[in-house]
Amino acid sequence: MAAPLRLGLAGLGTVGIGVVQIVQKHADLLAARAGREVVITAVSARDRTKNRDADLSGYAWEVDPVALAQRDDVDVFVEVMGGHEGPARDATVAAIAAGKDVVTANKALLAHHGHGLALSAEAAGRVIRFEAAVAGGIPVIKALTEGLAANGMRRVMGVMNGTCNYILTRMEDAGLPYAQVFEEARQLGYLEADPNLDVGGIDAGHKLSLLAAIAFGTRVAFDSVELEGIGAIMINDIRHAADLGYRIKLLGVAQVTGRGLEQRMTPCLVPVSSPLGQLSGGTNMVVLEGDSVGQVVMRGAGAGMGPTASAVMGDVMDIARGMRMPTFGMPATQLAVPVAAAVTSASAWYLRMMLVDKPGALAKVATALGDAGISIHRMRQYDHTDAQAPVLIVTHKATRDDVNDALARMSKTGVVLGDPVALRIEEV
Amino acid sequence: MAAPLRLGLAGLGTVGIGVVQIVQKHADLLAARAGREVVITAVSARDRTKNRDADLSGYAWEVDPVALAQRDDVDVFVEVMGGHEGPARDATVAAIAAGKDVVTANKALLAHHGHGLALSAEAAGRVIRFEAAVAGGIPVIKALTEGLAANGMRRVMGVMNGTCNYILTRMEDAGLPYAQVFEEARQLGYLEADPNLDVGGIDAGHKLSLLAAIAFGTRVAFDSVELEGIGAIMINDIRHAADLGYRIKLLGVAQVTGRGLEQRMTPCLVPVSSPLGQLSGGTNMVVLEGDSVGQVVMRGAGAGMGPTASAVMGDVMDIARGMRMPTFGMPATQLAVPVAAAVTSASAWYLRMMLVDKPGALAKVATALGDAGISIHRMRQYDHTDAQAPVLIVTHKATRDDVNDALARMSKTGVVLGDPVALRIEEV
Repeated sequence: MAAPLRLGLAGLGTVGIGVVQIVQKHADLLAARAGREVVITAVSARDRTKNRDADLSGYAWEVDPVALAQRDDVDVFVEVMGGHEGPARDATVAAIAAGKDVVTANKALLAHHGHGLALSAEAAGRVIRFEAAVAGGIPVIKALTEGLAANGMRRVMGVMNGTCNYILTRMEDAGLPYAQVFEEARQLGYLEADPNLDVGGIDAGHKLSLLAAIAFGTRVAFDSVELEGIGAIMINDIRHAADLGYRIKLLGVAQVTGRGLEQRMTPCLVPVSSPLGQLSGGTNMVVLEGDSVGQVVMRGAGAGMGPTASAVMGDVMDIARGMRMPTFGMPATQLAVPVAAAVTSASAWYLRMMLVDKPGALAKVATALGDAGISIHRMRQYDHTDAQAPVLIVTHKATRDDVNDALARMSKTGVVLGDPVALRIEEV
Repeated sequence: MAAPLRLGLAGLGTVGIGVVQIVQKHADLLAARAGREVVITAVSARDRTKNRDADLSGYAWEVDPVALAQRDDVDVFVEVMGGHEGPARDATVAAIAAGKDVVTANKALLAHHGHGLALSAEAAGRVIRFEAAVAGGIPVIKALTEGLAANGMRRVMGVMNGTCNYILTRMEDAGLPYAQVFEEARQLGYLEADPNLDVGGIDAGHKLSLLAAIAFGTRVAFDSVELEGIGAIMINDIRHAADLGYRIKLLGVAQVTGRGLEQRMTPCLVPVSSPLGQLSGGTNMVVLEGDSVGQVVMRGAGAGMGPTASAVMGDVMDIARGMRMPTFGMPATQLAVPVAAAVTSASAWYLRMMLVDKPGALAKVATALGDAGISIHRMRQYDHTDAQAPVLIVTHKATRDDVNDALARMSKTGVVLGDPVALRIEEV
């Protein structure tokens, strides 16, 4: 049997302790499957005195994760600290420089610095693996990079922020407004310290940018992800969507169009009867579309101790088994610089607005749409009790530019009150 | 760049031509992702004159797949002929003996001879990969063997015969009886030459036995899979199940209980609202349950040229990238001989029977159940117009033995007409 694979574990939060528990509980199983033992030799966290739900007495302790990354008795640096600058980045850079392989759960680090890290690692003959960074326990990076490696990818989609999906599901089920459910989620501890990472779509956008890099052989380009959060979604939008046979999801879509790589993480309407439409609560779902395989859908827990630790350890097992690959599925030197396409693909749109309750208001809105080249598929005016009339329009296919043009024209008519909401209807 | 990986392709049916098309269409993409070219050097099929939808002029031709498997210019023997004896088996054995790696889509071959083949391959330092043998294009073997390698697996489940799922879905949607939909499926070419492979659950049972071997570290044990086909399902069963909130699926379940490895491929009731219950038409779905990851659900095309070729080529890409592993995820010499457990786990059951329309008939059935130790959760008697009364019973949890005992007792009462139907209700 080969020598044990020795892990240096940086971060002893929920995920880190989950990793410790798997290594301790399944020592025999891991050895049988990997053909060698997998052991933790050293750990790192800020507070050594904190009470943690695991026996850490057998491991060396480093206060500084950089020192951990450089230890001679560490083969693989396992980074589950988080944060895309500071200690996590410094220690990852140090690990590669010291000749260690890296397993990380850090989507922000890779979304911001993944290309540079991949270049360094590959120049040093080291691997960086990051299954836990995207969609938690679902082995989607593996499916995309390896299982579907013979496909030209057409589109990847995903609901990859469980908190947003929880909020939208809860709004629908309980008929509660966004602000109230947001507050509930905060009290339940579902939100990041900076909640905009969740509800602003940033966390999910990080994940999408990593999937897109693998799917399309391009350098990670988080900066060109079109981001739109869920904060403007009203309970009435959810109800109107349901009337039309749709649910609203914070949906990531990446695809290559004639004008380049399009990446967007925005609230979309998807058919209630589709797998994405059926997804409720904190669960994640990723849809991979390849030219040979067609559509593969994967669903599972997107966060939490067990699922995230499962993904971290899946990567560790690959390294233990000698399975080595470039970070993004092909050498980083060969990844194309993506044409930072604006999101140009056309789709049907859901538009919701309040109109002043005057004769001719609806005609002015319809004219604005027509002048922007957008034709109307369905239109509904809802009951109203005051001087405002809620109006809902489903358009035929239009680009974001066309829609923006139409919204600008509408605002000049003087009949639209407040800001209209415009959401894509995604064909899934 | 490393030397090209050279494939010898045995079988030029739908899947074989799909492989040719991918290799030709995506030559650059495969080379970029694998770090080396992937080429076909030789092919084999019975009839050279047959018109096929691919240019084969660049490949050497062997009539005998054994000769193909032994060629010096072949690194990987790709077997997409089918059949668990005869040429497919002979050529696979020959390939291993000649020092070739093997990629196969042949579930029957592995279900019957997988353990012996794995032992030979591992002794020779060769790999056998078989993603295409289970659930078509869904990369479920990879997810289970690698992605979830750090999990103790609790249960694996799957709807893995698209033809059966098509038949059951069509019966429900069109309200047609089994025999008529079976005939439709035959005319559409959905059925194997021996349709019992499909509707008898054998094909799906082969697949389940392969998943179980990986999940539980046991030798493939197809012979101990409890098999029950869909031929006894009546349209009324589908309707009754729907009334109760369930759909009927040919569902494979493998799990380890206190008494050993339990494997069954039988029609089951699953909740309409579950991912399995939502699955319609020819699509496949596999559910993997691990002690850390929880439940991972994968859905996609279970058959067809593109999806199956995608899976074959995914395995080829792993070999091209130097990723090597034992056939069933750990060395074949370490796989346990499974305790060939009868299926002993308890579940709720759906029972449907016709009773003679006489006073006291229902009481006799209820007594038979009680005497077998089974308690009744729900009971419905449906409208009837002649001397027969259809009765439907949902039980509390009971084992198969208890149910068989109850059915034997019922048959002695003289009030049950024909054979009752007993289907498990699976908690998913």
